[in-house]
Amino acid sequence: MVTDARSVLQRCDELARCSEEAGRLTRRFGTPALAQARDLVAGWMREAGLHPRVDAVGNLLGARGDGPRLLLGSHLDTVIDAGRYDGPLGVLCAIAVAERLRDRPLEVAGFADEEGVRFGTAYLGSALLAGRFDPAWLDRTDADGVPLRSLVGDIAVPPRADLIGYAEVHIEQGPVLEALDRPVGVVTAIAGQTRARVTFTGRAAHAGTTPMDLRSDALVAAAAWVLEVHALARATPGLVATVGELRVEPGAGNVVPGRVVASLDVRHAEDAVREHAVEQLLAAVEGEVLQANGAVACDDSGFPADLPRLASGAGHDAVMLSAVCPVSMLFVRSPGGISHHPDEAVREADVAVALDTLTAFVEARC
Amino acid sequence: MVTDARSVLQRCDELARCSEEAGRLTRRFGTPALAQARDLVAGWMREAGLHPRVDAVGNLLGARGDGPRLLLGSHLDTVIDAGRYDGPLGVLCAIAVAERLRDRPLEVAGFADEEGVRFGTAYLGSALLAGRFDPAWLDRTDADGVPLRSLVGDIAVPPRADLIGYAEVHIEQGPVLEALDRPVGVVTAIAGQTRARVTFTGRAAHAGTTPMDLRSDALVAAAAWVLEVHALARATPGLVATVGELRVEPGAGNVVPGRVVASLDVRHAEDAVREHAVEQLLAAVEGEVLQANGAVACDDSGFPADLPRLASGAGHDAVMLSAVCPVSMLFVRSPGGISHHPDEAVREADVAVALDTLTAFVEARC
Repeated sequence: MVTDARSVLQRCDELARCSEEAGRLTRRFGTPALAQARDLVAGWMREAGLHPRVDAVGNLLGARGDGPRLLLGSHLDTVIDAGRYDGPLGVLCAIAVAERLRDRPLEVAGFADEEGVRFGTAYLGSALLAGRFDPAWLDRTDADGVPLRSLVGDIAVPPRADLIGYAEVHIEQGPVLEALDRPVGVVTAIAGQTRARVTFTGRAAHAGTTPMDLRSDALVAAAAWVLEVHALARATPGLVATVGELRVEPGAGNVVPGRVVASLDVRHAEDAVREHAVEQLLAAVEGEVLQANGAVACDDSGFPADLPRLASGAGHDAVMLSAVCPVSMLFVRSPGGISHHPDEAVREADVAVALDTLTAFVEARC
Repeated sequence: MVTDARSVLQRCDELARCSEEAGRLTRRFGTPALAQARDLVAGWMREAGLHPRVDAVGNLLGARGDGPRLLLGSHLDTVIDAGRYDGPLGVLCAIAVAERLRDRPLEVAGFADEEGVRFGTAYLGSALLAGRFDPAWLDRTDADGVPLRSLVGDIAVPPRADLIGYAEVHIEQGPVLEALDRPVGVVTAIAGQTRARVTFTGRAAHAGTTPMDLRSDALVAAAAWVLEVHALARATPGLVATVGELRVEPGAGNVVPGRVVASLDVRHAEDAVREHAVEQLLAAVEGEVLQANGAVACDDSGFPADLPRLASGAGHDAVMLSAVCPVSMLFVRSPGGISHHPDEAVREADVAVALDTLTAFVEARC
């Protein structure tokens, strides 16, 4: 019987041994390491009175009871050189809650792909349940040329119509709860995101022979814009805007930069705020929007009012599930805000609060 | 008899056919292409009444007369995918002037390495005449592992004590004369140069989950500094300061930059101005000076007072020769300021002015 935080964390440790690589945790979609993790978790599901099955894309789904039900869970795949909590913590908390409430009908999911590392498209797992698996994805190939098509079964399945809600525990992957000194927080929305590429064109020139007033320095223009991005985001509550990539051409110490290509990532829980910010930031530059996803509202009504509320800046399986049912998320404090890194951590006491909170949430719903 | 601009430019065309690569001009130190160019130029030296010889590092030196003399010339090596005037124009102008003034004792140099492309150290040729050839350079190897030592003879030669001056015609490689609408200009000094590396350390973080007020974004800090570099240089007459390289780590669109490494190149004709600027620009950052070279004053007394004066932001063989004699330089307008590129050009009428100016300079000196 695993129902306490300490045991959940021991299972996180055990699961972290299922890896594609010795010495570090990497568990991508469609790998033997993921199948091994699934077998381990399926055993734990059975112990908790759930009946595990694996669907066409490799999601592990453990259900009990008939009729409409609540889905709990998270994903079992990881990034490369990952921490052990991003995903698995939510799956193992869900199983522990299923164990605590053995008389309730519910279902636990361990999704096969949320990170999108192998095929460059995230949410392959939860997309199937949501009826949002795009058949065009089947033609994608991984770095070794393996097509996605060769790894999955019949993806022509209807969206799930039997879910009354989806609830997910996940590490925050950010510093907000730590700054608030709170163990858990309720997600109000998953932020919408715009990704863009911005190009600054100047004139490459000799750094010694070209006087300042005869230069057109692409990096100087880009630098002014980077500061503008930062200032706008700081001045707009809830907005995050990031220039994470910046490539200087030709990129030699003695040549005035002729061209700079920069990335822009803008996120906000309200689409109108994000869209207005993107418009402002691209108004005076040569920009190209690569991707724009709307925000997803979360149902926070099942959680106590005294828990802190926050938006999620990162995407989660709940984005997909929102197509078929209300989605709710509970964040667990991330010490140091560390994520996608072996140093990713959670505190046992915080996990205990998350378990109790999720238990109460489920008790009130089904 | 080649004494006019048109013929000099035809020789530039002919010389450009001596290349390591078909279809573009590349003529590095110690290559058969350079030896071929040297043979061609040696023939033209003989026609002009000079007696060519090749010294231990491969410089072509054509002299006539005894005793102290004026040295004219430039370099015969090129960068990769070069233009045809950077170097050769100065050598061929010198030979044309020698032809015009057949009764004067003088010497013409076609230096074997000014660009430093093959062994990463410039001025190998002129350093030998100046007594500044560092024997440590002999241990350098090129990209194929060929040691410099295998290509040169006895480098233990004393500095030249018989030179009363060195005068070099060179393309400007910048836009100043074009902006002034003048064919030629007299160099007052070759700017000193400081090269530095500056590191900005922030904290890498998730671009979605890290609120703006909890970030330490290394690129934002670097961007503010890039603008500071630009502003200081614009506010300081004659100063050029360039950030030509900037590397962002980890460099992903969805990660707040944790580290940025940037280059800094600062040049000025007065060392004190350059040193003060570097001090200001590195005062508040983590910087490391990689190289600092003092300015070299040029003797402009032999040129007409009505010619425009300018500093050279690029280095030239005159830097080395300044150790043994006064050095003088005459720049020829570079259309578009283009340099180190196949599109590098000069105008025939401008070369005609350069030839007449250099002829008068030599007549007055010897």
